[in-house]
Amino acid sequence: MAANTFGTLFSLSSFGESHGIAVGGIIDGLPAGIDVDMNFIQNELNRRKPGQSGITTQRNESDIIKILSGVFEGKSTGTPIAFFVENKDIRSGDYDHLKGVYRPSHADYSYHMKYGIRDHRGGGRASGRETLNRVAAGAFAKLALEKVGIRLFAYVKQIGSIKLLKDYNKLDLQTIEKSLVRCPDERTSILMEKLISELRKSGDTTGGVVRCVITGAPAGLGDPVFDKLQSNLAKAMLSINAAKGFEYGSGFQGSEMLGSDHNDEFFAVQENKEGVKNKLIKTKTNHSGGIQGGISNGEDIYFNVAFKPVPSLMMEQNSVDEKGNAVKIIPKGRHDVCIAPRAVPVVEAMAAMVMLDHFLRYKAYKI
Amino acid sequence: MAANTFGTLFSLSSFGESHGIAVGGIIDGLPAGIDVDMNFIQNELNRRKPGQSGITTQRNESDIIKILSGVFEGKSTGTPIAFFVENKDIRSGDYDHLKGVYRPSHADYSYHMKYGIRDHRGGGRASGRETLNRVAAGAFAKLALEKVGIRLFAYVKQIGSIKLLKDYNKLDLQTIEKSLVRCPDERTSILMEKLISELRKSGDTTGGVVRCVITGAPAGLGDPVFDKLQSNLAKAMLSINAAKGFEYGSGFQGSEMLGSDHNDEFFAVQENKEGVKNKLIKTKTNHSGGIQGGISNGEDIYFNVAFKPVPSLMMEQNSVDEKGNAVKIIPKGRHDVCIAPRAVPVVEAMAAMVMLDHFLRYKAYKI
Amino acid sequence: MAANTFGTLFSLSSFGESHGIAVGGIIDGLPAGIDVDMNFIQNELNRRKPGQSGITTQRNESDIIKILSGVFEGKSTGTPIAFFVENKDIRSGDYDHLKGVYRPSHADYSYHMKYGIRDHRGGGRASGRETLNRVAAGAFAKLALEKVGIRLFAYVKQIGSIKLLKDYNKLDLQTIEKSLVRCPDERTSILMEKLISELRKSGDTTGGVVRCVITGAPAGLGDPVFDKLQSNLAKAMLSINAAKGFEYGSGFQGSEMLGSDHNDEFFAVQENKEGVKNKLIKTKTNHSGGIQGGISNGEDIYFNVAFKPVPSLMMEQNSVDEKGNAVKIIPKGRHDVCIAPRAVPVVEAMAAMVMLDHFLRYKAYKI
Amino acid sequence: MAANTFGTLFSLSSFGESHGIAVGGIIDGLPAGIDVDMNFIQNELNRRKPGQSGITTQRNESDIIKILSGVFEGKSTGTPIAFFVENKDIRSGDYDHLKGVYRPSHADYSYHMKYGIRDHRGGGRASGRETLNRVAAGAFAKLALEKVGIRLFAYVKQIGSIKLLKDYNKLDLQTIEKSLVRCPDERTSILMEKLISELRKSGDTTGGVVRCVITGAPAGLGDPVFDKLQSNLAKAMLSINAAKGFEYGSGFQGSEMLGSDHNDEFFAVQENKEGVKNKLIKTKTNHSGGIQGGISNGEDIYFNVAFKPVPSLMMEQNSVDEKGNAVKIIPKGRHDVCIAPRAVPVVEAMAAMVMLDHFLRYKAYKI
Repeated sequence: MAANTFGTLFSLSSFGESHGIAVGGIIDGLPAGIDVDMNFIQNELNRRKPGQSGITTQRNESDIIKILSGVFEGKSTGTPIAFFVENKDIRSGDYDHLKGVYRPSHADYSYHMKYGIRDHRGGGRASGRETLNRVAAGAFAKLALEKVGIRLFAYVKQIGSIKLLKDYNKLDLQTIEKSLVRCPDERTSILMEKLISELRKSGDTTGGVVRCVITGAPAGLGDPVFDKLQSNLAKAMLSINAAKGFEYGSGFQGSEMLGSDHNDEFFAVQENKEGVKNKLIKTKTNHSGGIQGGISNGEDIYFNVAFKPVPSLMMEQNSVDEKGNAVKIIPKGRHDVCIAPRAVPVVEAMAAMVMLDHFLRYKAYKI
Repeated sequence: MAANTFGTLFSLSSFGESHGIAVGGIIDGLPAGIDVDMNFIQNELNRRKPGQSGITTQRNESDIIKILSGVFEGKSTGTPIAFFVENKDIRSGDYDHLKGVYRPSHADYSYHMKYGIRDHRGGGRASGRETLNRVAAGAFAKLALEKVGIRLFAYVKQIGSIKLLKDYNKLDLQTIEKSLVRCPDERTSILMEKLISELRKSGDTTGGVVRCVITGAPAGLGDPVFDKLQSNLAKAMLSINAAKGFEYGSGFQGSEMLGSDHNDEFFAVQENKEGVKNKLIKTKTNHSGGIQGGISNGEDIYFNVAFKPVPSLMMEQNSVDEKGNAVKIIPKGRHDVCIAPRAVPVVEAMAAMVMLDHFLRYKAYKI
Repeated sequence: MAANTFGTLFSLSSFGESHGIAVGGIIDGLPAGIDVDMNFIQNELNRRKPGQSGITTQRNESDIIKILSGVFEGKSTGTPIAFFVENKDIRSGDYDHLKGVYRPSHADYSYHMKYGIRDHRGGGRASGRETLNRVAAGAFAKLALEKVGIRLFAYVKQIGSIKLLKDYNKLDLQTIEKSLVRCPDERTSILMEKLISELRKSGDTTGGVVRCVITGAPAGLGDPVFDKLQSNLAKAMLSINAAKGFEYGSGFQGSEMLGSDHNDEFFAVQENKEGVKNKLIKTKTNHSGGIQGGISNGEDIYFNVAFKPVPSLMMEQNSVDEKGNAVKIIPKGRHDVCIAPRAVPVVEAMAAMVMLDHFLRYKAYKI
Repeated sequence: MAANTFGTLFSLSSFGESHGIAVGGIIDGLPAGIDVDMNFIQNELNRRKPGQSGITTQRNESDIIKILSGVFEGKSTGTPIAFFVENKDIRSGDYDHLKGVYRPSHADYSYHMKYGIRDHRGGGRASGRETLNRVAAGAFAKLALEKVGIRLFAYVKQIGSIKLLKDYNKLDLQTIEKSLVRCPDERTSILMEKLISELRKSGDTTGGVVRCVITGAPAGLGDPVFDKLQSNLAKAMLSINAAKGFEYGSGFQGSEMLGSDHNDEFFAVQENKEGVKNKLIKTKTNHSGGIQGGISNGEDIYFNVAFKPVPSLMMEQNSVDEKGNAVKIIPKGRHDVCIAPRAVPVVEAMAAMVMLDHFLRYKAYKI
């Protein structure tokens, strides 16, 4: 039940504080014999890294992953893969003025209430830096999923009030990484970038929404009744820092629809696989988001994750310290204006972990 | 990892199909010595029952709970509490015409793909009837939570496009059960009832949103980083049949806000408890929904759950059968027009289970 | 982590007290499509039942299993299988004289200290009657294991000081059930029966040892490092009432051996499977008990379980009550002289659960 | 269910191969605010280290533990504690001659069958070096247990056929570390040392038995029915490399006893705690080993663990390689003659983890 472990047959145990020695984790349950492409894994980490552009925060984190176990001669051995990334450039001194202060909408106060003790430097365990561990584990999961034809694509669907309303089918998901804000629609991307620039100037921040699309999942993943595929995806997403909501398929908007519009009609297509004619059953629409009764139905799986505005502002704020004294918080350092672009690889990673876990669970019962 | 078990220190293992002999479960981890108020528990089950009014489905389910273990002379013993409710009035024959047919947006197809076998009668394991188990377990959890001052209130916030936009602080949550649709605002309630009546006439259905508010939770519940309080609430909610989305605090709308508006400012109030003067730290606003960094901060916890339109329509629909042949689905029996009112006690129950589990986990580490 | 649930991919959640309404459980993770042979399952329960002969206790328990879910038209559906057995003939009044009394070497005192409340009737949750749940779940596990060629045989190896020292390879394991004490060696069986008769006359009891042999397990079951096959077998066995020890392969005696005698030498045999010649690797001896490094090696798996003397004596004993007052315990009812013969099906059942769980885990990673 | 994670509320996730870069782990669930005495922790690791005397293997391992997270200003923060120890002096070349060879009674063959791939160097994941992780986690657990008055003492009870038969009550457990073989009886210790010297000369090895005694545990630890205290101790012990058996209290010998001799009679003693007179209930004997019905009863907890002879011999052995060809294994390097003395801190560590976990579980339900 370890609270810092996620997953059952494929799991990540995560450790580390932002201003400690390192962050990292142990991946347990990667099948043996997977080619461990270290370039791919490092590249996934780089996608999460701040300072990739004028858009995201400028803190320089080199973030080179080191593997301590579980890989032998370039292949996974089936045993736990431990990895870590050193915390360099940590400048803890930047946080001295925050010692004993509860920053608004940060985890300072609630951690202190829980543990009676806390590492005040940069969020400690609650720092976004911890998501690096998830990206690393997700990268390993993607390597295994690739083998079975499951792929994931996340992109920024909204920043502040700028929304990309086009259906994902009408977007070229290969262009996501070309956008500074990871929005695969050029016009919307430009608007988003502008909004971020303006907010940066005013010292303010905003939130955003990330969409994730999963293709190639066979029908049958997910378990009734508590371990529905969407249940575990929801848990995974809400465990990401700053996430405030999750919806899949038609989501919250679906609540307003009529059943007669919302139902996904089944139909059969003639399939000709290796000389054998089969009827493949598909749905005409996909308001179900590829999941029915908690179990994948072979259609694309898609969902949205809402992120709140970054709570670290470049303006003065009122707060209290541990003794209840009123204090002013003076901004220091640099912070993201909107976390959504950097959350993209984290969303993908958490989704990849859930999908691989459920794929392994699915395999287990095929005796 | 049992997929039909939910929770760690307080858990429910659920069983049963809608048209089998019974549904029920085993509750593990209720502390010993709790007074087991059977009237309260039965009443909670009655709240979930269909046919309570003209608004919900007419199927008559008596749903009397039977306890098989774990209670001795009116008190919990600390050992597992097994319970079940017989499936009476099941009229399986009603479903004969659906044998081999995949109903749109039901779990028929995905279950069949997963297991290669399925109980076609009334949804089987995927039936909403299974939620009865959750309401029972939630009722026991509420008895324990009551002891420590934690209370839960859920209500219908939206049906179709009719939305209750008032803040929950401005509602009288004691009036929820007086509304046929469980909406504690008379005018909105009437509009919702009308919408349901009209949809019933046209044979159509719609979705809705349920809000849940939790009061009295101490600061410190929830565990970083994967078992955040909202992560487990999200998982719990998305495991409810027909749930499509979860958001807490400012949720999806928060994504559009500015950080300077969204941040919850801390302040201290002088508290005078048992002669000792203390400073109690509070927040001026509560966009955080009572949770910061995954851990409760002592404010009210609140969240929304979106439900999709009921997929069983009282109109003809196109579909396919197991062999891929086109079929027409002719409606039979009676079904809810909107599941949100009946989902209210289920949302409360799942939330109660999560809260008790996290409360026990919190206690564990106070050595 | 539910304490009353055992197993991961195949699990049993157990409930019930000896003098409550029923005992039973929920089996989660039986693969779909298994033919559920109810005669076999009932017969397994009958093997555990007391009063089968002059040897075991005379209490009449009819113990008819009822299935509430998870089986449809004779096959497992992949969903949870709930079952229960009513407690008839319970005569709780037999235990009135024990109210508030701590029986020596029973669980009365420790339960009371843990929970502050207890069901004093017949051991409550700690009663051997709970093992009925395990036998039921084990029977389902055996049905699945049979499909993949794994079989289990347990027998009585020792009662009091009467020991069967022959190697299991020299016994006819098909004769186990023919012996009143479940010892597949006629001469030893007779000696054991005599010992039991004599002890019964004197009102005394004794302990015993059960051996279990598992054949047909492929190499590769078990997980390093904590979920070694023997670790989970040990946990399973020590969870059986009255079990005091577990050893596999050479066990405690192996500690006295020299490495040069103990090591199991590998050799290769020419195998001719479906026209292909292969070398099958075997070991000349099997001190390893079929497990090396926590993982099965394809040889027979075998282990012993020690059981303590039955603590319910037919003679007066000294004890104390809840207030610390000295009391005399006067025997009532009838009890087993030695639990080992009736533990045989329980040992098999727990072993079957462990083996199926590990088999499913093994399958999961073969992507 | 991560197979490389042990424990629920207090857990260790372990990683590492003997000849990889490092071994280590993540400890989750140490309560916040514990003083982390690094000298004590390093000393515990040193106790496990080989080459401490002429008795154990000469390989030089410096084994300095490095903490990466979870400790702030000398105190535990409640977040995961990651640690690792580098593998220096690994001389992988020593194992080149074993590439593709299955060493008798090692894990080479079974790992290969499971994973289809293996790190052949020095046992890889199956190496005894992994137990270092357990000793580290156990050291942290001991720091927390010390706070609540629970202490653990393990010693060598048997090496080969040399047995220490005295009751642990008659030994001075403070002298354990003074003996080269960790046997707190001078005469037996000398005999054991002699046996080891002689076996070393002949290139042979033997097994042994370790006893562990736990004092100060309150009544009430352990959970019915599957998570009995002895069940989890048994699992913990059987997960240690080379362990072949576990018994607690009277153990296997208890099977031969009469119930009238075996039962532990309760009696009450007058206790005078802080001015209040109470009756403390004790047992006259302790064949129960401090556990009744799976729950501690306040008496000392004690158990034995059997270890097999070390399979690495300093003599030529026959075996096969991966293709089934007969090969000769020529000894290289240095190995322990008997693992029991070095297993002592590992047994204590695993027991400490189980005890802390159950203590936290016990606390959780005291609401």
